[in-house]
Amino acid sequence: MKVGLVGAGTVGGGVCEILRLRAEQLPALEVTKICVRDAAKKRDFEVPAGCEIVTDVNAIINDDSIEMVIELMGGVTVAKDVVMGALVKGKHVVTGNKALIAAHLPEIQAAAKAGNAAFGYEAAVCGSIPIIAAMRRDYVGDTITAVMGIMNGTTNFILSKMESEGADYSDVLAEAQQLGYAETPPDFDVEGWDARSKLAILCKLAFGVFVPELNIPCAGITRIAAVDFEYAKQLQSTVKILGVASRNEDGSISAHVSTMVVPFSSPLSRVTGPMNCIEVTSQNCAQMCFSGPGAGRYPTANSVVNDVAMIGSGGGRGDPFPMNSAAQVKSEVSGRFYIRFTICDGLGIIRTIGEKAEKAGISIHSILQTPIVNPQKVMFVLTTERTTLTAVKQMCDEVAKLSWNKDEALIMPIMD
Amino acid sequence: MKVGLVGAGTVGGGVCEILRLRAEQLPALEVTKICVRDAAKKRDFEVPAGCEIVTDVNAIINDDSIEMVIELMGGVTVAKDVVMGALVKGKHVVTGNKALIAAHLPEIQAAAKAGNAAFGYEAAVCGSIPIIAAMRRDYVGDTITAVMGIMNGTTNFILSKMESEGADYSDVLAEAQQLGYAETPPDFDVEGWDARSKLAILCKLAFGVFVPELNIPCAGITRIAAVDFEYAKQLQSTVKILGVASRNEDGSISAHVSTMVVPFSSPLSRVTGPMNCIEVTSQNCAQMCFSGPGAGRYPTANSVVNDVAMIGSGGGRGDPFPMNSAAQVKSEVSGRFYIRFTICDGLGIIRTIGEKAEKAGISIHSILQTPIVNPQKVMFVLTTERTTLTAVKQMCDEVAKLSWNKDEALIMPIMD
Repeated sequence: MKVGLVGAGTVGGGVCEILRLRAEQLPALEVTKICVRDAAKKRDFEVPAGCEIVTDVNAIINDDSIEMVIELMGGVTVAKDVVMGALVKGKHVVTGNKALIAAHLPEIQAAAKAGNAAFGYEAAVCGSIPIIAAMRRDYVGDTITAVMGIMNGTTNFILSKMESEGADYSDVLAEAQQLGYAETPPDFDVEGWDARSKLAILCKLAFGVFVPELNIPCAGITRIAAVDFEYAKQLQSTVKILGVASRNEDGSISAHVSTMVVPFSSPLSRVTGPMNCIEVTSQNCAQMCFSGPGAGRYPTANSVVNDVAMIGSGGGRGDPFPMNSAAQVKSEVSGRFYIRFTICDGLGIIRTIGEKAEKAGISIHSILQTPIVNPQKVMFVLTTERTTLTAVKQMCDEVAKLSWNKDEALIMPIMD
Repeated sequence: MKVGLVGAGTVGGGVCEILRLRAEQLPALEVTKICVRDAAKKRDFEVPAGCEIVTDVNAIINDDSIEMVIELMGGVTVAKDVVMGALVKGKHVVTGNKALIAAHLPEIQAAAKAGNAAFGYEAAVCGSIPIIAAMRRDYVGDTITAVMGIMNGTTNFILSKMESEGADYSDVLAEAQQLGYAETPPDFDVEGWDARSKLAILCKLAFGVFVPELNIPCAGITRIAAVDFEYAKQLQSTVKILGVASRNEDGSISAHVSTMVVPFSSPLSRVTGPMNCIEVTSQNCAQMCFSGPGAGRYPTANSVVNDVAMIGSGGGRGDPFPMNSAAQVKSEVSGRFYIRFTICDGLGIIRTIGEKAEKAGISIHSILQTPIVNPQKVMFVLTTERTTLTAVKQMCDEVAKLSWNKDEALIMPIMD
């Protein structure tokens, strides 16, 4: 089978290296064209013998001898043309482009069907972890009730370093950028958008529902401070950013990406560094957990190669998103919450906050306050009993109007 | 596709229930015959409409209308006839019978090839964890260097209960038997034989080598005492029984099942209760980890159904054990060791043990001894630097000859 590769950076180069070094254990495949931005650039991998370097994606899309296209250029504009163009022409496509899939899942699904082509996207979600294969294959006789986990290595690296070193966000971010774990600007990771794309894809596989990303509430890590790890520790917990999707009792689906207070008793609390970890809860299997490197050249390239090999040996056909459901999606987040207030110390503050909580129908579970060092900037934490994010935000909006409130409250769900 | 089921106990009944309850999400399958020992026995599941209950396996093997046989009767005698008989007739086979596969892997592989039949065995290794699918699919362009993990739920339940309650082995075993977690007699689990079967299967998938079970050194949990958890804790560790297989630098393979000293820093140390957890180390993916329920009606039946559905929809063909290698298998275990001696207190014991260690070429890493309560029965622990199990056993054999030695030394590898 002749293969065209679009994008020959970190992951694309890794794919070429694996295909070259492991040729004898893989189905017969030949990369005949590689499309890059700059044909003259020196490559950090060995270009396959006889492979043509091109700079126009149409040289691959319109090449009838090419049966499979590997898209690893990233982005959602040209990459979309490549993926859709290849699929409708009946070329199989393998991609690691989570943003593209999350943005255009229904069109991709339709194009794969129209072209009767295989669509492999294992590399799009959580690096080397074979979570897409597991979701497509291992729950065919089961009902998934929840999918949650650490879906972004950059932010997990930052949060676990903040936890272990008591360091502040900006310092650790700078270090992560120096180490190449975080990009500049880091928004896609630290705002939770990368995890949100992955969660949107997992929602479709787990529940059959396509949830547009903008309908998934998303709160990143930029406002997490060292003090939050101190307070979390008092709750026998740490802080992680998780993607969470679950089936509610009424059949509707809830999904959100958020920093959360995660108890030490949860395996997710111990996933450190740039690792990813996904927990899948289902009726037959109770809970299964899949963890591994969430990014990196060879872990991600390995997932690409798995798809390429599967398709190359005749597998991977059929609807890439086999489950279809009309379940309703709720944007509400329910549960217990951690609310960190920043105030100027004074009389009657706890009483007032108690009143605002009562007015919002929120029952207070605990109030945590370390001894005050600077009365002009006191950070204390309130944890709630089970309520909704809407109620919590309503309460915080009320508090925000008061003179002694010095900063927007930080709100995090507490993992059960 | 018409299906025959042999064995309708815990797992077989679960399979029938899933096939019935999830029919609309599964490929079209019809269980037309179920073979049981006692046709009159009341079933704890709904027998499919039109399904015939038979008591002779040949009624299924010789039924040309049946294309797939699910073997869930257990054992290695009649079950072997069923599996081999079905495969050579070209019937696809799905089984959860780890003992059978580990005992007759090469014959099963040959029969599947001869009959051009699919052979699914996801349920044979670690309940619901899709480790067989992962090993067959997700490392096609990779090289696995080690597979290790908690492969038996019964013993993990017993050890984690001993750890959390400071209880002794016999008490916890009795409780596990009452709860249905352990069988009577419990030998298959507590001697490590069940884990050894699974490890033999994983060795073939990871390294292409069939290792007969009796060539895999195996040490169960029966001699572990509460005191071992106390000493392990001093080493920031706990005690787990693990299956371990790895590729040595010279290309040879080592495999053993053993209670081991596992540091708290390892995720395996925190797998508690009847859960299983497998870590796979490879060149492309560094380390991936798969965990979930290792046994139970629906977790195991879910794995059976995954295979049945895959085969029913045309997948799962090809060599069920695709990797074949002539790598040498070494029965030696190398690493650091924990040795617990039981002695009658006296003068010169540490000096003598030091001499015996030196004679065996073993460098001592630490000596742990809690204050002596009963001088007639002192348990103390020696940990070694890197050496071999052969050297450790040689040293312990020398110590065993001495008058103050009161019991066989307990030897456990220490996980790196």
